[in-house]
Order: sequence, then structure tokens, then C-alpha cells
Amino acid sequence: MIEFWYEFASTYSYPAAMRIEAMAEEAGVAVAWRPFLLGPLLHEHQGMTDSPFNVVPVKGQYMWRDMERVCAQEDLPFTHPSQFPRNTLLAARCAVVGIEEGWTPAFTRAVYAANFVADADIGSPDVLGALLEEVGASPTAVLAAAQAAPAKDRLKDHVAQARARGIFGSPSFLTPDGELFWGNDRLEQALTWASRHQERETA
Amino acid sequence: MIEFWYEFASTYSYPAAMRIEAMAEEAGVAVAWRPFLLGPLLHEHQGMTDSPFNVVPVKGQYMWRDMERVCAQEDLPFTHPSQFPRNTLLAARCAVVGIEEGWTPAFTRAVYAANFVADADIGSPDVLGALLEEVGASPTAVLAAAQAAPAKDRLKDHVAQARARGIFGSPSFLTPDGELFWGNDRLEQALTWASRHQERETA
Repeated sequence: MIEFWYEFASTYSYPAAMRIEAMAEEAGVAVAWRPFLLGPLLHEHQGMTDSPFNVVPVKGQYMWRDMERVCAQEDLPFTHPSQFPRNTLLAARCAVVGIEEGWTPAFTRAVYAANFVADADIGSPDVLGALLEEVGASPTAVLAAAQAAPAKDRLKDHVAQARARGIFGSPSFLTPDGELFWGNDRLEQALTWASRHQERETA
Repeated sequence: MIEFWYEFASTYSYPAAMRIEAMAEEAGVAVAWRPFLLGPLLHEHQGMTDSPFNVVPVKGQYMWRDMERVCAQEDLPFTHPSQFPRNTLLAARCAVVGIEEGWTPAFTRAVYAANFVADADIGSPDVLGALLEEVGASPTAVLAAAQAAPAKDRLKDHVAQARARGIFGSPSFLTPDGELFWGNDRLEQALTWASRHQERETA
């Protein structure tokens, strides 16, 4: 098993979300999808109230060009969104609702594609409703559940877990033996680690 | 050709410095060694007066563990240095002196090994003198040249070039067509890019 921790506003989490399922299956590792909010941690750790890529423009300039290269290499479409970062609170609350029902992986991919390919406002309930419908979930029921206490609490708990486990960026990958890997470009290494851990446990 | 931009205090630049020559030879790409100082850029871009890994402890904690994994994977020894970051001004000035004389690659590797394996103070003229001797350079002559105007100016020019070309971290790799790659984990991609560029130019 590997935990995949992601924030919907994170650019590099988009290719990770698109790649992880096939790669994990190949490695024989199950994926636990862990949507969380990075904003509170960036604020606590680094005093930031905006994306680091906006706070430090020279890093942002690099990141947008790098994203073009990374997506081209993975044959993934990519559009520089007209708004960055977008509000991801409602999307993340919807994503935690789907964990029990099984549609979180497909919904996650749909939200990233909306944000970074279709350039749609993933903060809008209308946009999210259409994506929920796409993945076979009930827009009305899920949007209502997303705004009720259990979903809010579960997302808060994800943020608390991320904080407690030393996560400071997205995407992050956590193995059962507590190894943390940060960044889309560490997905291969994280899966190798998780797979070796499994082999040791079952040997 | 590929330009390898590095700061001696940078942890991830150590494995990059150890790996680049053999990998570049394999790719048929020449390496231009470009020592620079990251401190002035971190200050200008991010207002930092210390390593980001000290300023943001949760990132530092991750980095030290990650360095252990990265070095283990590359079969490189690694010691968490007792002082971090160390003063790298004199080492960088020596390194620019060696570019014409040809010993900069060997000296660079020796400095990184002193900092991150032997845990030696690479800010000390005595330590640097011993490393210079190791790589066949004259300690007295080089240490004198390193503290004279031409070497100081050349290092300043490296920092100015780095700033002008959007470099904000170390290691960075720059290809002749202006593509910037940041991070030890991008060395493979940077060399592939440089090699394809060469093929197009000579086709």
C-alpha cells in the first residue's frame, strides 16, 4: 500500500494523479487516495498566504515551463490556467466523501483535468457537480454531504495527519514504514520502496 | 554542451557533481562547470539569509532523510555535516581559478566530499589548500589568485549570469537552447535534452 497525498491546486500533482494508478498496479501496490489542503501547512511552515510559485516569481516561471516539459513527456495535455491557484476547499471535501463510495480516484483525475486542461473553475459547485456526474456520483447528494460536518471533519483530519507526518508539499507519497517522498518525480522511487516493504512483510 | 551550475553548500549538488561526468560522457555531451553563489539569489528572490532547509525545518528534516536515500541509491557515502551551510566563498573563488587550468571538476568533487563525507570545514584555507594539492594544483598560487580581483570578478559574473538566466537553486543545468533544469533528479532529463539539441544542430 502507498498513500498518495494531494492538493487540487498543485500543478505537479496533476501528472502524479494521472500516472499513479497504472504504475501502482504494475508494482502490485494498492493506492490510498488522501486529498488534503496544502494552504494551511504552507502558512504554518513558511508564512505563505499564496502559492510559493506566486510568492517567488522566478520559481513560478521555471515551474510553468517545467510543467509543459513534464506533461509533454507523459503525453498529457496541459493548459496554463487563467487563475492560479484556484479555491480547492469544496473539491477536496467532495473527494473525501467519495473515498468510501469508490469514485475518488476518477473524480480526482476529473478535477485535475478541469483545472489544468479545461481551465475550468474547480471552486464552483456547478463545475464540480458536472464532474461528479461524469464519475457516476450524485451531484446533489455529494455536494450536500461535502458541506456537512462529517466531510469537513474528515478533511480537517487529513490536514492534521499530513502535518503530523511531516508533509509540506504536494504530491507526497507515504509508505507503511513511514518513508515520505515528495514530488511527482519521486513516484517511481516511492512505489519501489512500498513494493520492497510489502515483500519483506510477506516473506 | 551542458552548463552545470552549482553552489558548494548545496546538498543535492553533491550527488550531481559526482554523477555528471560519466553520464555526460555516455550522452556525448561536454560539461561546462559553473560554480556560483546561491546565497545572494536566495536573498534577492526569497528574502532568505540562511539555507531554506534551516529556514523551513520541516523541509530540512525531509531533505536530510532524502539525501541518505539518494546517496544510498547512487552508492555514494554521505555524512550529515556538523555545520550547515558552510561558508563557500573561498571555495567558489578557487573553483573559478581552476576552469582555465582544467582541475575544476576534480576540485569540485573533492570539495563536496570534504563537506558531505569528511565533514571538514570547506571555508578554511588550510582545508582547501589540501584539496588543491590533491588535484594537482598549487595551494599557494591558487589561494592567492582566488583572493585577487580577476577571480572575485569572475565569480560575481557567474552570479550575475545565474540571476539573468532564471537560476534560483542548485544544482541547475542549462542547455545551449536556454532550457533550465533544476535538481539532481533532473540531470538525466537535462542531458537527454542537450544531446537532442546537439543532434539537431549537427544534422
